[in-house]
Amino acid sequence: MKFSSKLLEEVMLAFHSLPGVGKKSALRMALHIMKKDPEYSKKFSEAIWHARSNVKTCIQCFNFADEELCSICTSPRRDIRTICIVESTRDVMAIEDTNQYQGLYHVLGGVLSPIDGIGPAQLQIDPLISRLGNGNVKELIMAINPTIEGETTIYYLTKLIQSFHIPVSVIARGVSFGGELEYADEMTLGRSILARTPYQLKLGGG
Amino acid sequence: MKFSSKLLEEVMLAFHSLPGVGKKSALRMALHIMKKDPEYSKKFSEAIWHARSNVKTCIQCFNFADEELCSICTSPRRDIRTICIVESTRDVMAIEDTNQYQGLYHVLGGVLSPIDGIGPAQLQIDPLISRLGNGNVKELIMAINPTIEGETTIYYLTKLIQSFHIPVSVIARGVSFGGELEYADEMTLGRSILARTPYQLKLGGG
Repeated sequence: MKFSSKLLEEVMLAFHSLPGVGKKSALRMALHIMKKDPEYSKKFSEAIWHARSNVKTCIQCFNFADEELCSICTSPRRDIRTICIVESTRDVMAIEDTNQYQGLYHVLGGVLSPIDGIGPAQLQIDPLISRLGNGNVKELIMAINPTIEGETTIYYLTKLIQSFHIPVSVIARGVSFGGELEYADEMTLGRSILARTPYQLKLGGG
Repeated sequence: MKFSSKLLEEVMLAFHSLPGVGKKSALRMALHIMKKDPEYSKKFSEAIWHARSNVKTCIQCFNFADEELCSICTSPRRDIRTICIVESTRDVMAIEDTNQYQGLYHVLGGVLSPIDGIGPAQLQIDPLISRLGNGNVKELIMAINPTIEGETTIYYLTKLIQSFHIPVSVIARGVSFGGELEYADEMTLGRSILARTPYQLKLGGG
């Protein structure tokens, strides 16, 4: 790609450095910036710089926050007796989008992966232990991705917090809604047979 | 999509305002910004703002430029007797990437499209006439997209510059290399039959 303007090339390269953005898409984005009025690009660059320098990590759940505590931790409508343990902010957002969960979260920041140098000290595990210490928590939900590392992390955490005698659950796994059996991988299909649930004629009924 | 941080949401929305970026991709980009060190986001936002406020339009060919004249117009290696007329900077870049053209360009900024309110005055046509007035130009190549509006623009320009007696050519159209006949549209295939060229056993040979 040959540029008649070095400055334009730098914008293209900036966009190209983002995940999943090829050079052609990056060029399209850069030309979009050039076409719009200067106010647009000013706001655009300010949003990025402003967020990066001001976004905090919630001191309780380690999700992104604008204040010391995030909007979920401070909400009076949330059930503080339930904590859902997730790997990342994206998982929090995915669960929030389902509108099915009213408890709090705890963002680990990853999963145990010795090969990548990620041990318990690299994750927000100590703060989790402190959170459980106050005795308010009545249930822990492990909403961790079903990978080898994820399973290891669930096992490690469950062992670690055994002494608190808090019930631990993992989110249900199986064939997804609308999915087709023949396309499900063997592991998922096998597990969903083993973890079969009684069929209820009146779903959601008493 | 529910955000625990308003600032993070603003970055997502900024990326989402770019062409071809959905909300999920925009979120991925925003989280990438958060994960990288602050220096990265500083450079990122500066590149955008710096380019938008400093990139100029070449006063000769109307391509993007860092100085008054773009790097193509000032290059001593370019053939100033040939001008290739294109719609946009992207077309210049596409042609430059072929390494097949050594002349100069003229970026119209679009094509005639009365329905969109684009007449001759909205395009860089007057400056083109001025460029041709100095008598240096020996060939004009119309590398304009083969749409109805593009064809109209080629016709209009060719009529307009008739008095200069400069040979005008259009880029060849036909089935693309590696393309399959059955997937070519009727217009392209029909034209490429009408515009068939004699087959030469020694391609590129004398």
